[in-house]
Amino acid sequence: MPAISQKGVAMPESPIRKLVPFAEAAIKQGKTIHHLNIGQPDIKTPQVALDAIKNNQVEVLAYSRSEGSDQYREKIATYYAKHSIDVGANDIIVTTGGSEALLFAMGCIADAGDQIIIPEPFYANYNGFATASGVEIVPVISKIENNFALPPIEDFEQLITPNTKAILICNPGNPTGYLYSKAEIQKLAALVKKHDLFLVADEVYREFTYGEEPHYSILQEAGLEEHAIIVDSVSKRYSMCGARIGCLVSKNKAVMKTAMKFAQARLSPPTFAQIASEAALDTPNSYFEEVKTEYRSRRDTLIAGLQEIPGVEVGNPKGAFYCIAQLPVNDSDKFAQWLLESFDLDGETVMVAPAAGFYSSAGVGKNQVRIAYVLNEDKLKRAVAILKAALAVYKD
Amino acid sequence: MPAISQKGVAMPESPIRKLVPFAEAAIKQGKTIHHLNIGQPDIKTPQVALDAIKNNQVEVLAYSRSEGSDQYREKIATYYAKHSIDVGANDIIVTTGGSEALLFAMGCIADAGDQIIIPEPFYANYNGFATASGVEIVPVISKIENNFALPPIEDFEQLITPNTKAILICNPGNPTGYLYSKAEIQKLAALVKKHDLFLVADEVYREFTYGEEPHYSILQEAGLEEHAIIVDSVSKRYSMCGARIGCLVSKNKAVMKTAMKFAQARLSPPTFAQIASEAALDTPNSYFEEVKTEYRSRRDTLIAGLQEIPGVEVGNPKGAFYCIAQLPVNDSDKFAQWLLESFDLDGETVMVAPAAGFYSSAGVGKNQVRIAYVLNEDKLKRAVAILKAALAVYKD
Repeated sequence: MPAISQKGVAMPESPIRKLVPFAEAAIKQGKTIHHLNIGQPDIKTPQVALDAIKNNQVEVLAYSRSEGSDQYREKIATYYAKHSIDVGANDIIVTTGGSEALLFAMGCIADAGDQIIIPEPFYANYNGFATASGVEIVPVISKIENNFALPPIEDFEQLITPNTKAILICNPGNPTGYLYSKAEIQKLAALVKKHDLFLVADEVYREFTYGEEPHYSILQEAGLEEHAIIVDSVSKRYSMCGARIGCLVSKNKAVMKTAMKFAQARLSPPTFAQIASEAALDTPNSYFEEVKTEYRSRRDTLIAGLQEIPGVEVGNPKGAFYCIAQLPVNDSDKFAQWLLESFDLDGETVMVAPAAGFYSSAGVGKNQVRIAYVLNEDKLKRAVAILKAALAVYKD
Repeated sequence: MPAISQKGVAMPESPIRKLVPFAEAAIKQGKTIHHLNIGQPDIKTPQVALDAIKNNQVEVLAYSRSEGSDQYREKIATYYAKHSIDVGANDIIVTTGGSEALLFAMGCIADAGDQIIIPEPFYANYNGFATASGVEIVPVISKIENNFALPPIEDFEQLITPNTKAILICNPGNPTGYLYSKAEIQKLAALVKKHDLFLVADEVYREFTYGEEPHYSILQEAGLEEHAIIVDSVSKRYSMCGARIGCLVSKNKAVMKTAMKFAQARLSPPTFAQIASEAALDTPNSYFEEVKTEYRSRRDTLIAGLQEIPGVEVGNPKGAFYCIAQLPVNDSDKFAQWLLESFDLDGETVMVAPAAGFYSSAGVGKNQVRIAYVLNEDKLKRAVAILKAALAVYKD
């Protein structure tokens, strides 16, 4: 039998993939599962986007331009202007989700064996894209006791080698919920300028901030134009995860020219989803206000609930819709499996994402889980009660 | 300024990309351009697919499963059964176009520095995916005088090295229009079994065959189960290029398990496009009969017209909707540019794809162009007349 590639063997599985059979078995047993493990919001997609699809006039579902339609990109530039990010349509390539934007970014800036420094815990799929691209992720540990703030800039600097091509951040952070301050972004900016690196920022949760402090984009930072690459997506912003539309944004013309070659090879991003995404830009502000109010309440409910559980530590997430919780367990992989396999409270249980998959350093985060607050408050309260009851009886 | 990756620099541009500014200038001058250069059909998308989108009941546009919905994959399996290809839903992963299926296939079977043998001329974007994956394409020249039939199997065998992982074919072929016979597929099957290689077949034009001979899929060949990987797409089949839905099909469980890890990293294929693609499987047979009749007439019109031009040689394409034509010119890149820049027949000109971009061997195909017959017969006749008039006056 012909052999699978080494890269293919090395590709990581999703952190929750091994839990799926246990979840399916639990459902067969008649258990109800509260899903705290995934970032799929329950929020309705804006009506204006759904209507655009229903009213589409497509007769021949043709390729769009590889970089996305001019009209859509012009409108995206207007969106960025509202967020004090000064870019034009030519600084934007529409991609098939933020995922593809990240894949293009890695392809443009790193060859096999090159390194990208990422504060951990980080979005687990960065590992997959790095493995697929042959790129090595070099982690910098951020800590729950500091609420996952930016690690000291010296921690980054001492990891820089001739193979280092970029620093990658997610802001606000999945899985931490941390929102980097302007001062933190400026420290990173100074470092990448000093060492001639790229700074890649996954800003797909830009709107989801719950405090006084506004989101500060890397493209708001003057002088960073040649270094900054933004990965963006409509998935969370408009609860359109299934659209698979994102974009790569940079004012570095060599990056954009190179990304265009990757974009041309795969022909075009999906046409229907671009129609919906373009319409979504007309979503009224009231939608975001309602959504933010909803998430803020959910966050407050979740964090307050978790803090009341003996032995649980949790940061105070300022953005996105995740938190990392440290549990009084030794191995959250086993605990997550046990929740599905062996525990229920009146026929209900919860599914959580073990956090080890969000760390690149071996052995770190083994007593942590990621919890997504994408359920309504009543369900969240119930889920926290189930978790509390489970921890009261769990022994590992 | 931070540096672009070597891979990014090496990424090829699309063969027609450099012609685009000349096409835009020609349009500004008021010229009408007949596009013989692209594979975007003018055929209407099946109504059943368009209706499914208009009638969709989506309220939260959520991620689908990474492998595509069970229901859609079950239905795809039924489609394959009608084509005497015996696969189940678990042998299928839904991808974002055939492009992503090919990228996953390369990722599963080849590491940086590995080789894949491909008969040339071949679909130009194979170069892009190979460069992105760090894989080396090793070409085997097929010849216009043999109508681009499979080169002697010895030509393949002598290129096999310890780094060879697969042979990749496109059947029927883009850009050649050649349909491999059962005997040719069986020769390839014996070779990949002898040397323990994968055989990857891009079968996106499966239905587009115009002679007596039926399409013979690599998955119809008994004993090839562990070696065969099919790349497929709805793009041409249902004139749904903009959907960006394809699939990877293999009975090799290690390949499918590995491809799933690539699929999970990018989360899911587009949801709306899956709805349309699933509905498209209910397209009545009469649609295909009409489309095939139309393309057969177009092919006959095009080939007859080209054969009447002095100095033009052209094969007899048996499938897909392309042909390679050899022109009495020294450099078809220059000729294609001249057509846009300096020629018109009563204000009209044609755009063709220079064939050098479809060859990996340097200097081969420089007097050839690819012509797509995706225009209606009247337009095709006019385009051929323009090409004839142009060749009568062109001097290079």
